[in-house]
Amino acid sequence: MDYFFFPKSVAVVGASRTPGKVGYELLRNLIEFYKGTIYPVNPATDEVLGLKAYPSIKAIPDKVDVAVISVPADKVAEAAVDAGEAGVKGLIVISGGFKEVGPEGAERERKLVEVVRKYGMRLIGPNCVGVYVPKSGMNTLFLPRTRQGFPPDGRIAFISQSGAFGSAVLDWAALRGLGISKFVSYGNKADVDDDDLLEYLRDDPDTKVITMYVEGVEDGKAFLKSLKETTPVKPVVILKSGRTEAGARAASSHTGALAGQDVIYDAAFKQSGVIRAYGMEELFDMGLALAFQPPAAGDRVAVLTAGGGSGVMATDALSDLGLKVPKLSDDTVSKLRRVLLPIASPYNPVDVTGSARDEHFLESVEILMRSGEVDAILWLPYYIIPGVTEKLNVEFVKRVNSINKELPHPIPVVGVATGGQYTSKYSAEAESLGIPMYISPERAAKAVKALVSYGKWLIKSGTYEEYIRRFYS
Amino acid sequence: MDYFFFPKSVAVVGASRTPGKVGYELLRNLIEFYKGTIYPVNPATDEVLGLKAYPSIKAIPDKVDVAVISVPADKVAEAAVDAGEAGVKGLIVISGGFKEVGPEGAERERKLVEVVRKYGMRLIGPNCVGVYVPKSGMNTLFLPRTRQGFPPDGRIAFISQSGAFGSAVLDWAALRGLGISKFVSYGNKADVDDDDLLEYLRDDPDTKVITMYVEGVEDGKAFLKSLKETTPVKPVVILKSGRTEAGARAASSHTGALAGQDVIYDAAFKQSGVIRAYGMEELFDMGLALAFQPPAAGDRVAVLTAGGGSGVMATDALSDLGLKVPKLSDDTVSKLRRVLLPIASPYNPVDVTGSARDEHFLESVEILMRSGEVDAILWLPYYIIPGVTEKLNVEFVKRVNSINKELPHPIPVVGVATGGQYTSKYSAEAESLGIPMYISPERAAKAVKALVSYGKWLIKSGTYEEYIRRFYS
Repeated sequence: MDYFFFPKSVAVVGASRTPGKVGYELLRNLIEFYKGTIYPVNPATDEVLGLKAYPSIKAIPDKVDVAVISVPADKVAEAAVDAGEAGVKGLIVISGGFKEVGPEGAERERKLVEVVRKYGMRLIGPNCVGVYVPKSGMNTLFLPRTRQGFPPDGRIAFISQSGAFGSAVLDWAALRGLGISKFVSYGNKADVDDDDLLEYLRDDPDTKVITMYVEGVEDGKAFLKSLKETTPVKPVVILKSGRTEAGARAASSHTGALAGQDVIYDAAFKQSGVIRAYGMEELFDMGLALAFQPPAAGDRVAVLTAGGGSGVMATDALSDLGLKVPKLSDDTVSKLRRVLLPIASPYNPVDVTGSARDEHFLESVEILMRSGEVDAILWLPYYIIPGVTEKLNVEFVKRVNSINKELPHPIPVVGVATGGQYTSKYSAEAESLGIPMYISPERAAKAVKALVSYGKWLIKSGTYEEYIRRFYS
Repeated sequence: MDYFFFPKSVAVVGASRTPGKVGYELLRNLIEFYKGTIYPVNPATDEVLGLKAYPSIKAIPDKVDVAVISVPADKVAEAAVDAGEAGVKGLIVISGGFKEVGPEGAERERKLVEVVRKYGMRLIGPNCVGVYVPKSGMNTLFLPRTRQGFPPDGRIAFISQSGAFGSAVLDWAALRGLGISKFVSYGNKADVDDDDLLEYLRDDPDTKVITMYVEGVEDGKAFLKSLKETTPVKPVVILKSGRTEAGARAASSHTGALAGQDVIYDAAFKQSGVIRAYGMEELFDMGLALAFQPPAAGDRVAVLTAGGGSGVMATDALSDLGLKVPKLSDDTVSKLRRVLLPIASPYNPVDVTGSARDEHFLESVEILMRSGEVDAILWLPYYIIPGVTEKLNVEFVKRVNSINKELPHPIPVVGVATGGQYTSKYSAEAESLGIPMYISPERAAKAVKALVSYGKWLIKSGTYEEYIRRFYS
């Protein structure tokens, strides 16, 4: 399915000259982002947005990899035949008016799939916003850039059953600075579904973690199989909606599909090592940690903080999630005491205090990592304190990475940076160096939990060593 | 205690000419923010930061309301005597080196309190960052503005037992655009404590909600009494750390005080109608809702959304918190059907769809509010959809407010706006008009829960009607 994400050429069927129309905004976004060749298709005009327009796909002189279709529902099958005749490999049907509107639409969808099968094509949609791939610029989203932001290239794949939610998340991710490898909104998933995408993303070298927003799946058995085949290789984090009775009722009036009993999904996720998120922020907080840090080989966490209060909150949050914040051995405590300020607290949390300087973080993290007493580190640097310099992040990450190379099991580090503008600048820097940073101890604790859970799953699956080797290669 | 927050004049004992020193940065912040008269006190110099310096407070020719003290611990008592002799009303002692450092410091603290009592003064601190009051500019925080942001004037009071956490939160609140009425970090609370502050803030017309970060209280009985006297009048939201076993251990090594068994705090909070937060974001998410929206008179919530998926997630989140998302009556459904698009869903969630225009939100919210079937509304507008105009917020709030005037019990409305830059602009506008907006359905659901819980408490206390009358006056 590479052609969906890295097509050499794209036809836009329903390309429009009217601003505000899907066929206009979509084409405009594609022109702005996409690096390949674009062919507008519109029988009523010769030119759209400065590009030569064609009356049909067949009329295009070159090979077309993907046709993006945004004509009215009753014209889609015809466009699909045109695409099939022209040797197009993949269709992305944005248009709604299919299964989601009732029996008539369902019949229309069945016929569309027939065409797709006949010509050996694949189909994303209908009733979706399609794909966004920063690396190739492939982008079928149709909201104008003034309203919708687009995140940069990155390590997180995001599959969304809801187009609206998917768009909003991309917009949010752009502001948050979260990098995306591939975004897919598959709408009614008449052809390409979760299983196809999991299979593709499993082997996709650009994707380090797969995040999904799921409302319901048709074939639970196949989904479970796909998940089981994916999680030993790559972490999968899922936000499943329609969990509660009222939520399931809402989902059924939204998609027409049954959300299914949550206990069944929950059991399937547990059985297949899926990490479950209970909200949008959680989905990406955990996704980010899994994309940038190695999984933990155990559940013992050290809290390394410059603020006593935040250290306590972090400890509470970790404990709430069933993680250990163990007492350190006398030996480790005395090693810490030797390098810290007299007012510092060398226990766990290790509180270097607001009087700390960069070296106190560097030496403590080294002692903690080499102690053999912890499996993960939650770091709360407080960039605003006077003794912290602008070199802290670089030095800290260098130290952590070099120690991890020597350890039998690498120790993941995630951070907390509660604050405003100044702090955000440094926490963005830490992230660019590979340490995910969170606004609160509670959110960071959930990220640590994801690393611990996934580590446990990999060990159980017998793929931990291989995963770690790949992670660092 | 008004003089702490609105002093006519402030002496800064330990004012320094050396950038980076507390006595320099604190004075610089005060000069920038404070509207009253400032007297630097430093026997070694005639002038600090362009202001005439005095060798002692007694040497100041005018009356001084508050003395902010940042000299070394062993000089603090002497400065306090000087302040007492000069007729100062309040001391804010920033300096550390008291109870928190052990028996010697505790003795020092005892002597300081003796001086304070002798002269009939009050004391905030020691070992604290003091107060910040946007309205008067009173500001004793000592981080340079380049590192620390300061939030605007607003309705939320915030009391923090941790100075570092308090500073970080103010910084975060500044970026978030959260308005603060009063911030107090009381450190070791040798004199002014939670009870004094609750008593003061209870009657403070500028404060609509009291938020607190608490690590532990000495006199639980007095605290419970203060809370019980406050919550029938004003909502109190508390983030208590040291909740878990590991957290309590961390807290005890941090403050030297026992965090106390959480079951006892939890029972006290329940008994006194305190709304409990389990994280920083939750504390202010709930505080914001209580500051701007009336409490709900029941637990039935309508979800009004433009995105089906988000509507389902909102329903899940509300259900998780024990709130009802009830089916609407046939009558209400048919009223909704009449005003909505054919593809819209007139149930609960009411899904106006991505094709909606402003009027669909306006008419639905009116029907829902007048139905008598719901007590609160969770609104998910999706500002990015094409049919939503820049007038939506203003029109929506106008409609909600005018209907609320006619209803026997007002219906609170909070919103969700997941997105990036464009969305943030509109969600900030909605907040400036009084509707708190959240990035995710899960966070908004917690805000609704706070409004429901507080409404229930007011009804139980017999103060609901009076609170509502005051809320709208």
